[in-house]
Amino acid sequence: MRVIGLDPGLRQTGWGVIEAEGSRLSHVANGVVRSDDRLDLAKRLLQLKQGLEAVFATHAPDSAAVEETLANQNPGSTLKLGMARGVSLLVPALAGIEVAEYLPMIVKKSVVGTGHAKKDQVEMMVTRLLPGCSIAAPDAADALAVAICHAHVRATGAAWSLGRADPLRRVAE
Amino acid sequence: MRVIGLDPGLRQTGWGVIEAEGSRLSHVANGVVRSDDRLDLAKRLLQLKQGLEAVFATHAPDSAAVEETLANQNPGSTLKLGMARGVSLLVPALAGIEVAEYLPMIVKKSVVGTGHAKKDQVEMMVTRLLPGCSIAAPDAADALAVAICHAHVRATGAAWSLGRADPLRRVAE
Repeated sequence: MRVIGLDPGLRQTGWGVIEAEGSRLSHVANGVVRSDDRLDLAKRLLQLKQGLEAVFATHAPDSAAVEETLANQNPGSTLKLGMARGVSLLVPALAGIEVAEYLPMIVKKSVVGTGHAKKDQVEMMVTRLLPGCSIAAPDAADALAVAICHAHVRATGAAWSLGRADPLRRVAE
Repeated sequence: MRVIGLDPGLRQTGWGVIEAEGSRLSHVANGVVRSDDRLDLAKRLLQLKQGLEAVFATHAPDSAAVEETLANQNPGSTLKLGMARGVSLLVPALAGIEVAEYLPMIVKKSVVGTGHAKKDQVEMMVTRLLPGCSIAAPDAADALAVAICHAHVRATGAAWSLGRADPLRRVAE
């Protein structure tokens, strides 16, 4: 299964694609899609949409997961974040792919083992879980983390009913 | 010139289309596009996008304007509003149409003459400025108001340089 993770932002949206075979993960590609902040909002959203659509066309993911970024203190920033997250939800939906959402705390717990991990800890664990991957940007590392989280939840979802441990904890064991 | 106004919301996005010939306005159509709140966010955004695209296909506007809805007290609602507004900005951009944004206060000032007009005053003025129009829903009235505001700004934009009065005030005179 090929999973794409997305870390939405209006200025730049991180993306990361991994291949998951059961519990074995491997890195495919990662990067960021940027919008030009000299353009108006509508054109910036269009840039994000077209950039992500190009990534989807190149890497043909089967499944998508988006970081459920929390509202910012600044309402104006929250509105913009909502717009960017809307694009990250729309593009998989347009491609006919189911899209899951994970809170940052869940992603961190899944990848690092604690919901309060710092950004550099997440990036370090991502490179450990995906040997040989080179991280294009911090937002791309976050996107790969979301993809890893989703792959683990998908792979271990069935295990729940077999009485195995919390799938979100197994990652760090 | 055919103008579409949009009043974004995740549950329902109002739309209103008018025809503007100089300062003469006439009603074309209005309505709301709804999303099903039992579906996940991605599918709801897709519903709004497809619904608005159908409206654009039917009424072929030349110009679009979106109400620049203010951030809500509730950050979660603000995020959702951002997503809905993102769709209202994206659909005209995808159709290759320029899209303007107006703060609610500017829309009210343009249509009623005061930035602090109440919702029913806006609706009353909309039906007065567009004789014979029947309002499908309150959000559709707001959308028509945005379209009227945009038509006036467009029609009177050139008048600025001729030293005429504030175009946002002329509407109410």
